[in-house]
Amino acid sequence: MKTRDMVIHASLELFNEHGERTITTNHIAAHLGISPGNLYYHFANKQDIIQEIFSLFEKHINENIKPSEEKEFHAGSMMAYLDAAFVALWKFRFFYVNLHDILLKDDQLKKRYLKLQQSTTHSISQILQQMVNAGLLCIPAEDVERLADTIRILMGSWIGHKLVQSNQKEIKPSELFDGVSRMILIIKPYATEASSAMFSQMESRYQSLIAEDGAALNAI
Amino acid sequence: MKTRDMVIHASLELFNEHGERTITTNHIAAHLGISPGNLYYHFANKQDIIQEIFSLFEKHINENIKPSEEKEFHAGSMMAYLDAAFVALWKFRFFYVNLHDILLKDDQLKKRYLKLQQSTTHSISQILQQMVNAGLLCIPAEDVERLADTIRILMGSWIGHKLVQSNQKEIKPSELFDGVSRMILIIKPYATEASSAMFSQMESRYQSLIAEDGAALNAI
Repeated sequence: MKTRDMVIHASLELFNEHGERTITTNHIAAHLGISPGNLYYHFANKQDIIQEIFSLFEKHINENIKPSEEKEFHAGSMMAYLDAAFVALWKFRFFYVNLHDILLKDDQLKKRYLKLQQSTTHSISQILQQMVNAGLLCIPAEDVERLADTIRILMGSWIGHKLVQSNQKEIKPSELFDGVSRMILIIKPYATEASSAMFSQMESRYQSLIAEDGAALNAI
Repeated sequence: MKTRDMVIHASLELFNEHGERTITTNHIAAHLGISPGNLYYHFANKQDIIQEIFSLFEKHINENIKPSEEKEFHAGSMMAYLDAAFVALWKFRFFYVNLHDILLKDDQLKKRYLKLQQSTTHSISQILQQMVNAGLLCIPAEDVERLADTIRILMGSWIGHKLVQSNQKEIKPSELFDGVSRMILIIKPYATEASSAMFSQMESRYQSLIAEDGAALNAI
């Protein structure tokens, strides 16, 4: 792996484990056993690294939360979306811990974040609409976009909410799976007869993942 | 009004308008035209004032978000709950802006906050159950509490979400009414035939309140 990529991945790991606020570029260099000078050869500052991590985040969202091109909509597609939402929360959890502070320091990142929010809401709308077209959901046309937006907001606020509630600084996988299961809870009342079994199956799956907690990470 | 109460109300107003972080006890004393010594006669520090404001918040929630004792459940009752949720968001908006920071500084307040969260989820569950019993909603028994909890989480995260999204430091009434309308969106798919007209009526009402923005405050 190139030094540049090593820095990005090590930073993501350290930010997630110890919080973005407490990790400096010196910590990152020390963790990798490289000199601060070497790190500064690749990145101007910590914000520069965060921008690169955000690119990975965008990539994950854009590749995984996009309407399927297959004509048929399977239960498996729905689960793939939910898993991708979980991975986004887990893999980039440091963003959600103090998003407000991170964005406040960086106008360019904020613009990218708001753009990603918009495109994610749009993708979720399209996915919901595909499910409506496939006869799996019955959502009034005028509510599809607001429902998509509400789901996205709930997910984006989930980690912040859980951290306020607990006395821990870290979030557990089971708490994130619980967040994903709330997405199902919000969509489920729109399930048609054709999809009610699919929704029951998904609910059981996420209930088991919540129960297994850490072990479940390997299943994703 | 007694000096003590004047301090509490002026502080709430200043915190809401300028943010809790930027307002000191000196600002509060100056705003009221009293000496800092007079303020300190009544309160040990700012945190002490925040605790008193939190008591007003608890009072508002406990008095207004509690299951009605009337046997019949009216559309009016539902709107009264939604209005109370809006008032809580609006009147105590400074809490929601940096809840995490406020609670981090004060263990006792955090305990009170978590207790209030629990009792609010319990009250919302009971209200939903009353609507189920009245034939207005059809929610599977095992989902009532998680639905109540999800609604509460969404409302509690709403202001933080909106502030991240906008470039403003302040929140507009219309943005808060939009939050309230999302509560309706989440509950509406469970509406029975008996209540679908009631839900349409509520949705139109909050749509008008969103459109009117500030003017709407007088209607609550």
